[in-house]
Amino acid sequence: MAQIKTFRPEVDIDVICYNSETVEEYHNITDLDLLISLINNPNYITWVNIDGTHCSYTLEYLLNHLKMHTHLMEEINNYEQRPRVEEFEDSLFVILTMLDHDLKMGRIKSEQISMILGAGYLITIQETGKPGDVFDSVRLRIKNPKGKHRKFNADYLLNTLIESVIDRSFTILEKLGDLIEDLEDDMIYQPTQAKLNQLYHYKRDVILLRRAIWPLREVLNTLSKDEVLHIQSGTQIYFRDSLEHITQVIETLESFREILAGLLEVYLSSNSNRLNNVMRVLTVISTIFMPLTFITGIYGMNFDNMPELHWKFGYYVVISVCLIVVTTMLIIFKRKQWI
Amino acid sequence: MAQIKTFRPEVDIDVICYNSETVEEYHNITDLDLLISLINNPNYITWVNIDGTHCSYTLEYLLNHLKMHTHLMEEINNYEQRPRVEEFEDSLFVILTMLDHDLKMGRIKSEQISMILGAGYLITIQETGKPGDVFDSVRLRIKNPKGKHRKFNADYLLNTLIESVIDRSFTILEKLGDLIEDLEDDMIYQPTQAKLNQLYHYKRDVILLRRAIWPLREVLNTLSKDEVLHIQSGTQIYFRDSLEHITQVIETLESFREILAGLLEVYLSSNSNRLNNVMRVLTVISTIFMPLTFITGIYGMNFDNMPELHWKFGYYVVISVCLIVVTTMLIIFKRKQWI
Amino acid sequence: MAQIKTFRPEVDIDVICYNSETVEEYHNITDLDLLISLINNPNYITWVNIDGTHCSYTLEYLLNHLKMHTHLMEEINNYEQRPRVEEFEDSLFVILTMLDHDLKMGRIKSEQISMILGAGYLITIQETGKPGDVFDSVRLRIKNPKGKHRKFNADYLLNTLIESVIDRSFTILEKLGDLIEDLEDDMIYQPTQAKLNQLYHYKRDVILLRRAIWPLREVLNTLSKDEVLHIQSGTQIYFRDSLEHITQVIETLESFREILAGLLEVYLSSNSNRLNNVMRVLTVISTIFMPLTFITGIYGMNFDNMPELHWKFGYYVVISVCLIVVTTMLIIFKRKQWI
Amino acid sequence: MAQIKTFRPEVDIDVICYNSETVEEYHNITDLDLLISLINNPNYITWVNIDGTHCSYTLEYLLNHLKMHTHLMEEINNYEQRPRVEEFEDSLFVILTMLDHDLKMGRIKSEQISMILGAGYLITIQETGKPGDVFDSVRLRIKNPKGKHRKFNADYLLNTLIESVIDRSFTILEKLGDLIEDLEDDMIYQPTQAKLNQLYHYKRDVILLRRAIWPLREVLNTLSKDEVLHIQSGTQIYFRDSLEHITQVIETLESFREILAGLLEVYLSSNSNRLNNVMRVLTVISTIFMPLTFITGIYGMNFDNMPELHWKFGYYVVISVCLIVVTTMLIIFKRKQWI
Amino acid sequence: MAQIKTFRPEVDIDVICYNSETVEEYHNITDLDLLISLINNPNYITWVNIDGTHCSYTLEYLLNHLKMHTHLMEEINNYEQRPRVEEFEDSLFVILTMLDHDLKMGRIKSEQISMILGAGYLITIQETGKPGDVFDSVRLRIKNPKGKHRKFNADYLLNTLIESVIDRSFTILEKLGDLIEDLEDDMIYQPTQAKLNQLYHYKRDVILLRRAIWPLREVLNTLSKDEVLHIQSGTQIYFRDSLEHITQVIETLESFREILAGLLEVYLSSNSNRLNNVMRVLTVISTIFMPLTFITGIYGMNFDNMPELHWKFGYYVVISVCLIVVTTMLIIFKRKQWI
Repeated sequence: MAQIKTFRPEVDIDVICYNSETVEEYHNITDLDLLISLINNPNYITWVNIDGTHCSYTLEYLLNHLKMHTHLMEEINNYEQRPRVEEFEDSLFVILTMLDHDLKMGRIKSEQISMILGAGYLITIQETGKPGDVFDSVRLRIKNPKGKHRKFNADYLLNTLIESVIDRSFTILEKLGDLIEDLEDDMIYQPTQAKLNQLYHYKRDVILLRRAIWPLREVLNTLSKDEVLHIQSGTQIYFRDSLEHITQVIETLESFREILAGLLEVYLSSNSNRLNNVMRVLTVISTIFMPLTFITGIYGMNFDNMPELHWKFGYYVVISVCLIVVTTMLIIFKRKQWI
Repeated sequence: MAQIKTFRPEVDIDVICYNSETVEEYHNITDLDLLISLINNPNYITWVNIDGTHCSYTLEYLLNHLKMHTHLMEEINNYEQRPRVEEFEDSLFVILTMLDHDLKMGRIKSEQISMILGAGYLITIQETGKPGDVFDSVRLRIKNPKGKHRKFNADYLLNTLIESVIDRSFTILEKLGDLIEDLEDDMIYQPTQAKLNQLYHYKRDVILLRRAIWPLREVLNTLSKDEVLHIQSGTQIYFRDSLEHITQVIETLESFREILAGLLEVYLSSNSNRLNNVMRVLTVISTIFMPLTFITGIYGMNFDNMPELHWKFGYYVVISVCLIVVTTMLIIFKRKQWI
Repeated sequence: MAQIKTFRPEVDIDVICYNSETVEEYHNITDLDLLISLINNPNYITWVNIDGTHCSYTLEYLLNHLKMHTHLMEEINNYEQRPRVEEFEDSLFVILTMLDHDLKMGRIKSEQISMILGAGYLITIQETGKPGDVFDSVRLRIKNPKGKHRKFNADYLLNTLIESVIDRSFTILEKLGDLIEDLEDDMIYQPTQAKLNQLYHYKRDVILLRRAIWPLREVLNTLSKDEVLHIQSGTQIYFRDSLEHITQVIETLESFREILAGLLEVYLSSNSNRLNNVMRVLTVISTIFMPLTFITGIYGMNFDNMPELHWKFGYYVVISVCLIVVTTMLIIFKRKQWI
Repeated sequence: MAQIKTFRPEVDIDVICYNSETVEEYHNITDLDLLISLINNPNYITWVNIDGTHCSYTLEYLLNHLKMHTHLMEEINNYEQRPRVEEFEDSLFVILTMLDHDLKMGRIKSEQISMILGAGYLITIQETGKPGDVFDSVRLRIKNPKGKHRKFNADYLLNTLIESVIDRSFTILEKLGDLIEDLEDDMIYQPTQAKLNQLYHYKRDVILLRRAIWPLREVLNTLSKDEVLHIQSGTQIYFRDSLEHITQVIETLESFREILAGLLEVYLSSNSNRLNNVMRVLTVISTIFMPLTFITGIYGMNFDNMPELHWKFGYYVVISVCLIVVTTMLIIFKRKQWI
Repeated sequence: MAQIKTFRPEVDIDVICYNSETVEEYHNITDLDLLISLINNPNYITWVNIDGTHCSYTLEYLLNHLKMHTHLMEEINNYEQRPRVEEFEDSLFVILTMLDHDLKMGRIKSEQISMILGAGYLITIQETGKPGDVFDSVRLRIKNPKGKHRKFNADYLLNTLIESVIDRSFTILEKLGDLIEDLEDDMIYQPTQAKLNQLYHYKRDVILLRRAIWPLREVLNTLSKDEVLHIQSGTQIYFRDSLEHITQVIETLESFREILAGLLEVYLSSNSNRLNNVMRVLTVISTIFMPLTFITGIYGMNFDNMPELHWKFGYYVVISVCLIVVTTMLIIFKRKQWI
C-alpha cells in the first residue's frame, strides 16, 4: 500500500519540566536516574520526549520504574498498532498514528506515537523525531509564561499534543481538498485518462486516511466521556473539543469520498457522451456518402445497354439526385437533432 | 469546496428587553456596564444580539462576567465549528450553522451563530449581521404583545431562533427541490452534458448540506430529550417539534440524494440507448449499401471477357438484383426490430 | 415531488357513541356543547371524526376543553408533519400520514390524519373527508354488536383506525408490486426507453413511500412497547400486530428497491449486449465487403497496361477470389462465434 | 413475486405422545375431547400436528381451551405473517416461514408454520401437510428410545422442529450455491444474455430468501437469550446453536449477494471488452481498405488527361503503393497493440 | 465456493505439561487414563492437542470426564461451525476457523479448531494436523524457560494459540495485499480481461475471508471484555491485544474491498476510454475517405456528356479538391482535439 515507514535507530531523550513559575529544558539525557528523579519531582510537570524507540533497555527501565505492564514494550516497538487508549494502575497509555504527506514521494506517511500519562508527567515516544517536528509549537506554548499549559496539569499537555497531531491531519486534508477541487473542473471540462488515474489515487488516499483516523475517534471518545485516570473533568472539555475536530475530519473525508464517487460518474458519463457524439458524426457521414457512392457506382458500370448514360443531361440529373439525397439526409438529421 | 465566508469586522450590539407587559429596544450599545446591568435585570428577558465577532474585548468581558469558560472565546471566533451544545455552571452554550443560498454565486454560504442561554437572558453572536437578517421575524413576534414570547422564558426565545435558522434551510431545500424537479424532465426527455454537470452540482450541494445539517440534529436531540440547564420541560415540546423539522430536512435530503442517483442512472441508460439507436442506423445503412456498392463495382471492372455486360437487359437485371437485396435487408431488419 | 394535496374547506363533524349494548350516531354536529357532553359521557366510548381542519375555532374550543397544549393547533393545521406520537397530561396525540394512489394522475397522494385519544373518547381529524373513506369499514365493524370494538375501550378503536390506514398502504404496495412484476418481463425481453422511464418512476415512488412510511414504524413501536397513557396492556398485542404489518411493508419496499436496482442492471447489460450484437453485424459486413469492393476497384482502374484484364478467364478468377475471401471470412467469424 | 401458495382445505390432526419409556401415536383424530385429554395428560409430552388450517372450529376450540388470545386465530389463518415469537399467560406462540424449492416451477415456495408451546405439549399448525414432510425425520428420532427427545421436555421438541425448518433452507442455499458456482465459470468464459437473466433470477431469489429468513433470526435470538416461558435454560444451548445456524445462513446469503454483484460487474466489463475488440477489428479493416479503395477510385476516373494511366508500369506502381499502405498500417496497429 | 476440506482420519494425541520449572512432552498417547491423570494433575498446566477429530470414542470419553455438554461432540465433528465461545459449568469452549492459502490450488482453505479451557488445562482439537503446523512456534515458546507461558496460566496459552491463528490470517492478507498492489499497476497501465478475472477472484477471496474472520471478532470481544470463566483479568490485556489485531485484519479487508472496487471502476473507465479512441480513429478515417471516394466515383461514371472529363487539367483539379478536403478535415479534427 501507500504507507512508508522510516527508521532512525538513535534514541534521543529530551525533557521539559515546568510549573506555573518556571521552565527547565534538558536535551539528550543519557543518565536514566536523573530522568527518573525528574519524573518523580512533584513540583514540576515533566514531559519526557523519546525519539526513536529502538533502545529497548531505556524503555524497559522506565516502564519497570513506572510499574507499567511490560507487555507495552512490544506494542511501543511494533509500528503497526491501532490507535487506542489503555488504563493501568498508575498511568494511562495512549497510542496514536500521526499522518504526514511525503512531498517527495506524493504518498501518505504514517508514524506511531506512544504516550504515557502519569501523575505529573507525560512520556511521549516517537518512532522517529526530527528537529522541527509537529510538537515544536507545543514547546513554544509551554515556554509562554501566560500560556494555558502553565495553569493546567499534564493532561492538558496530553490534549495539546493530540490536538497538534490532529491539526497535522487537517493540513493533509486541506491539501487533498484543494487537489480534489482542481480535479473537479478538469473532470467536467477536460476529462482524460491521466485525470482518472489521479482520481483513483485520491480515492485510495481517502480510504487509507479514513482507516488511520477512524480509531483516533474512539480514543478521544474514551478520553472525553469516560472517567479516565489522570484526566481531570476540567480538562475534558478540551478533549471534547478535539473529539469534535476529529469528527469533522471524518465527516470531511466522507464527503471527499462521495465527491470523488460523483466525479467518477461525471467522467464515465461525459465519456459515454463523447462516444455518442463521435458515433453520430460517423453515422451522419456514412449515411450521406454511402448512397452517393452507390449511385456513382451504378453509372460507372460498363453495360452496353445503359440508356441514361447517353442522355444529354444524364450527368447533371445524377449530380442533382446526389444533391437532393444530401439535402434530405441533412434535414432528417437536423430534425433528429444529430447535427 | 462550495462554502464561502464573508467577514464584516464591525461589531454591532443590539438588545431587546421584554416581559409580559413591555418591550424595550437598544441599538448599537457601546457601554458594556449598561449591557451587564440589562442582562442582570431580573424583571426582563434580555436578548443581546452581537453582529461580528471580532471585537474579542467585548466578548471576553461578557464571558468573564457570565462566568463562562474562556475557552469559548476561541470557539466563537473560529468559524468552522461543528454545531453542538455545551452545558456550563450557569449557562448553556449552543453553536449553530446557518445556511444561505448566495444568489449571485449560485453557491451555498454558511454562517456560524453562537448562542449563550442564561437565567433570563440569551446572547446571540453572529459572524456577520445585516439589516433584514433571519432573526427579524422573531423581533417582530416579540413585539406582538399577545405573542407567545411574552408568556415564556428565554428558552422559548432560543427555540424560535433555532427554528428560524432551520426554516432558512427549508427555503434552500425547497429551491433545490424545484431545481431537481426541473432537471428530472430534462434528464428523461432531453439529456445533455450541461444537464449532467448541473446534476453533479446539485449532488455536491446535497452532500455539503447534509454534512452541515446532520450535527444540528444532535443539538436538538440533546435540547429536547435530556435535562438541560435553563430549558424548562414546558418548552421542550417546542424543541421536540424543531427536532421533527430537522429530521424531515434530513430525510428530504436523503431522498434528494436517491432521486439524483436515479437521474444519473436514467441519463446513462438513455445515453446508451441513443448510442444503440445511432449504431443501428449506421449498421442498417452499411449493410444495405456495402453489398450494392460491391455489385456495381463488379460491373465497373474493365475485363475484356465479361459476358453479362453485353446482355441486352444486363443493366436492368443488376438494378433488379440491387432492389431485391435492399428489400430483403429491410425485411430482415424489420423482423429484428432494428427499423 | 410527486405528492399532491387537496383541500376542502368545509368542516364536517360526525360522532359515534357506543358501548357493549348500544350504538348512537350523530352527523354534522354544529352544537359544540353537545359535542363536549358526548365526549364527557362516561357510559359511552365516543369517536369524534372531524373532516377538514380549517375551522380553527371548533378545534381550539375542543383542545382547550380537553386541556391539550394549544401548540397542537399549529401541528394539526400544518399538513407536512412527520407521523409521531406525543403524550400529554390527559390525552395522547398521534399524527399519521395516509397514502393513497391517485388514479387520474398516476401519483401518490398523502393526507394527514391527527388523532387524540383520551379517557373514553377518540377524536380523529382528517385533512379532507369523502363519503366512503378508509374509516367506513371501521364504522361498520363498530355497529356489529358482536364485534370486538364493543368489548374493548377507545384504544382498540385507535388501533383499528391505524390498521386501516396501514391496509391502505398495502393496497398501493400490491399495485406497485404487480406493476413491477409486469415491468420485469418487459425489461428482460423487450427493454425500451419508455420502460426505463417507468422504472425510474417506480423507483421514485418507492423512495417517497419509504420516506412516508418509515416514521409510522416509530409511532407503532412507541404504542406497542412503551407504557403509554390510555393504551391498555391488553390492547398492546394489537399494536404489536400492526407493528409487524408495517415492518412487513417496509421490508417489501426494501425488496422492491433492490429488485428495481436489479432490473436497471439487467436493462443496462442487455442494452450493452444488443450494442455488441449490432456492432458485430456491422463489423462482419464491413470486413467482408470492404476487401471485395477494393478488388473490384482494382480492376475498374483504367491503366493501359493491366494484363489481367485481357485474360480469357480474368473475370471468373476475380469472382472466384471474391468467393474465397467471403468463405474464409465467414469461417473465421464462425470460429470467433460472431455469427 | 416468486412466492406461490398452495392450499389443501382438509384438516388432518396427528398426535404423538411420549415420555422416556413409551411412545404412542394417533392419526386423523376427530374427537376433540380426546385431543384435549391427551394434551392435559401430565405423564406425556404431547405433540399435536394440525395439517391445513381452514377448520377454524377445531382451532378455536383448542385456543379457547388453552386460554390463548383468540386474536391468534387470525394470525394462524393469515398466510403472510412475519416470523415471530409471542408470550402468553400459559403458552408461547411461534410463527415460522418454511421455504421450499419448487422443482417444477423453478421458484421458491414459502409455507407458514405456527407453533404453540405449553406445559408438556407442543401444537404445530401447518398450512398444508404432505406425507413425507420436513417433520418426518423428527418423528423418527422421537421413536428412538435412546434419542434426546426422550430425555428432554417439549421445548427440545420445539427446537428440533425449528432446526429441521432451518435445515430445509440450508438445502435451498446449497442448491443455489451450486447454481451460482456453475454460473461463475460461464460468466467469465462464455457470458450470454441468457446467463445474465439467470443471474438476475438468482439475485431476486437471494433478495426474497433474505427477506424470509431475516425475521427467523429475531425469533431465535429471543428464544436463546431472553427468559422465555416454557424454555428451560438447559435447552437454550440448542436454540443458541440454531441461532448460529441461521446466522450462517444469512451470512452465506450476504456473500451470495456480493458474489452475484461481482459476477454482474464481470459480465458488464467482459461485454465492454468484447465490444472493444469488435470495434478494433472494424477500425483496422476500415483504416486499411478505405484508403486503398480511394486509390483505385482515382485511377478508375475517366479523365482524358491522366498521364499515369499510360505509364507502362503505372498499374504495378499503384499495386505497390497499396501494399506499402497496408504494411505501414499493419505496423502501426501492431505497435498500438490493436492486432 | 473456494473452500476445500481435507480429511485425515487418524487421531494423534500430543500432550505438553509444564509449570514454571519444568516441561514434559508426551507423543501419540493412546492410554486415556494416563491422559485424564495428566489433565487432573494440579501441579502442571496441561495442553492436550488432538489432531483429527474422527475418533469420537476418545472425544466422548474426555468430554464426559470433563463434565461438558455431550452436545459439543456434534459441534466439534461438524466442520462448518461459526467461530464462537460458549461457557459451561467447569470449562470454556471456543471454536475457531483457521485460514490457510493452498499454494497448489490458489485457493483459501479453512480448518476448524475447537478448544476447551478448564482449570489448569487446555484441549485443542484440530480437523487435521501436520508436522510443522501453526502451533509449532507456541510449542517452542513454552519450552523457553524464561518465556511468559511459564509464568501464566492456561488462559495465556489459549491466547497465544488464538494469536497464532490470527497471525496466519495476517500472512494471507499480506500475500493478498501484494497481489492487489501488483494488479493495481496492471489495471491502470495494461488492463486486460485476464487481469479482470484475477480482480474478480481477489474480490471473492476478500468476501470469503471477511465471512470467516468476522465471527472471530465476536469471540475475542467476549474473551477480552466480559467476565469469562478461567480467563483471569491479568490475561485479558492479551486478549484485548488480539482483538485489536483482528480489528486491524477486518479494517484491512474492508480497505482491500474498496480498493478492488476502485480498480474495477478504473478498468471500466479506461476501457470506455480506449473505445472512444478507437472510434475516433474510425470516424476520422471514414470522414476523410468517404467523401474522397465519392468524388472519384463521380468521375468514374460513364456518361457521354461529362464536360469536366475533357478539361485539360480536370484530373489535377480533382486531385487538388481531394487534398483540400483532407486538409480541411484534418484542421477540423485538430480543433475538436480528435487527433
